[in-house]
Amino acid sequence: MSDLKTRFLEVYSVLKSDLLNDPAFEFTDDSRQWVERMLDYNVPGGKLNRGLSVIDSYKLLKEGKELSDDEIVLSSALGWCIEWLQAYFLVLDDIMDGSHTRRGQPCWFRIPKVGMIAINDGILLRNHIPRILKKHFRQKPYYVDLLDLFNEVEFQTACGQMIDLITTLVGEKDLSKYSLPIHRRIVQYKTAYYSFYLPVACALLMAGEDLEKHTNVKDILIEMGTYFQVQDDYLDCFGAPEVIGKIGTDIEDFKCSWLVVKALELSNEEQKKCLHENYGKEDPACVAKIKELYKDLKLQDVFAEYESKSYEKLIKFIEAHPNQSVQAVLKSFLGKIYKRQK
Amino acid sequence: MSDLKTRFLEVYSVLKSDLLNDPAFEFTDDSRQWVERMLDYNVPGGKLNRGLSVIDSYKLLKEGKELSDDEIVLSSALGWCIEWLQAYFLVLDDIMDGSHTRRGQPCWFRIPKVGMIAINDGILLRNHIPRILKKHFRQKPYYVDLLDLFNEVEFQTACGQMIDLITTLVGEKDLSKYSLPIHRRIVQYKTAYYSFYLPVACALLMAGEDLEKHTNVKDILIEMGTYFQVQDDYLDCFGAPEVIGKIGTDIEDFKCSWLVVKALELSNEEQKKCLHENYGKEDPACVAKIKELYKDLKLQDVFAEYESKSYEKLIKFIEAHPNQSVQAVLKSFLGKIYKRQK
Repeated sequence: MSDLKTRFLEVYSVLKSDLLNDPAFEFTDDSRQWVERMLDYNVPGGKLNRGLSVIDSYKLLKEGKELSDDEIVLSSALGWCIEWLQAYFLVLDDIMDGSHTRRGQPCWFRIPKVGMIAINDGILLRNHIPRILKKHFRQKPYYVDLLDLFNEVEFQTACGQMIDLITTLVGEKDLSKYSLPIHRRIVQYKTAYYSFYLPVACALLMAGEDLEKHTNVKDILIEMGTYFQVQDDYLDCFGAPEVIGKIGTDIEDFKCSWLVVKALELSNEEQKKCLHENYGKEDPACVAKIKELYKDLKLQDVFAEYESKSYEKLIKFIEAHPNQSVQAVLKSFLGKIYKRQK
Repeated sequence: MSDLKTRFLEVYSVLKSDLLNDPAFEFTDDSRQWVERMLDYNVPGGKLNRGLSVIDSYKLLKEGKELSDDEIVLSSALGWCIEWLQAYFLVLDDIMDGSHTRRGQPCWFRIPKVGMIAINDGILLRNHIPRILKKHFRQKPYYVDLLDLFNEVEFQTACGQMIDLITTLVGEKDLSKYSLPIHRRIVQYKTAYYSFYLPVACALLMAGEDLEKHTNVKDILIEMGTYFQVQDDYLDCFGAPEVIGKIGTDIEDFKCSWLVVKALELSNEEQKKCLHENYGKEDPACVAKIKELYKDLKLQDVFAEYESKSYEKLIKFIEAHPNQSVQAVLKSFLGKIYKRQK
């Protein structure tokens, strides 16, 4: 494990201990135990890419200078706030989607005794973020900007989730409601803001930057987040299950995936009919017909073309940015996802 | 309808229209319609006491001076933020409790097509609060204090809801886990902070006060909120259904009500056995036995005694407060709830 990851995990223990002794609430023993178990189950078990990228980005903005202990703790705390945000969304999304497993274990609400209490646990996870921010950043000049940032990004994510849920509702009656513009909008709001823009925006604030002056950084990261989600959609169908660690079910689940949207765009009347008849069905024969159609439409080539075009465009944008260390942050992000297999 | 209530309701329309045109999100027609329907269904249909009390309190702090248009809009906006907060909690609580009706209509998640999307709608309601605050208060010197206040009170409410849920889980195995200290803690965190402290704290901030200097105001309002919830527990069993507008089910629902806690305290061994055997059962015969026991224990007299003691104590505290206009705010609150029948 890298040294920074070790440090990052140490900060988790500190934050957890702060939260379990928060003076704003008088815990009972039962409730303190409950929160500890809930945090350990839901917060640290992911890949932690989003959280770690705050420290990485901050370091690049500081032109690689060794970070002080204080800087490591603060950038880790912001990274963990993003992981807490993610945990909050995942706990609630799993209930809404009726999911069974997450990160290789049962979803939190599937645990006996938890059930619908998981809704309140999701709310608690969300409420921990301003507690962490207040404890560590209240005296910083950028404190109010941090609050505004987390509020705005959470709002955008919830809006993205809303159009995803509504579109699926409408799409089930009429698949042709799925289109590239709606797919783009869902992805941008539901994923790109919090996964790509938020970590860099946190690092920029810590480095004393004014976010208003970095709208082009935001645009580039949203573009990158969109590309990332298209990869995700692609890998759900064409990735190797043993590499991505799960068996994709977007076709069965009637997801507004980039693949089905592209398929609708490229299909003739007969192929459209096949999509309408077979998309969103549990039956493996129906799933097979959809996969067959994707192959007929050469979606693997269409994706490869999309991937290289996206990369070129992003590199061009990034290299047009006046600040070298910001360029380094953006290139580091892009390098991590370009042609990823998982 | 009072003039202020009319003005208050007008501000709702303004806030709603702001939110439906929020530049931080690109609405689709479907999603804009969805949010509008969701807001109208869940936000303005209550008694609006919490929201209106922000304007009332602010006016009293200004020693009854006529408020400017701007002051009415701002205090109403803060009042609506509390109503939004309440709507958010209620939408999610109803799912957690498996409730059927709320304010005389089906719970939001019971509406066909809504279902579990209601969880995300609850999140949206919560996210609207910082949007409203940013739009109307970003330039005010007390903006960051408003954000901190709403964050802290929401956190406390979620913690109160957590101990309520956990205590019920434990209580179902062992009723004797219910006690006056735990009841007090649940009530204080789950209800008193957001219903009593929050409206006055909002008014104090608008009036330029430092909340750190008003911890005694907080203590008095928390005490008042506790008294209010004890009344609620009492009325659930002993109130007239045609007056309170619902038929109480705290006994059936195994609630940690002030009545059962007092009953446990006052019971002999035989009566305790009766409580253990009959509390939390749907069977009307069991409910009748509990009500009979409450009467044997003279809980109506115990409550009357509690009520007058609470009132005296609160009046004494209030009159010890150095500031006359703050006294007026607190007395106005107390006057509204003392000996209420609904």
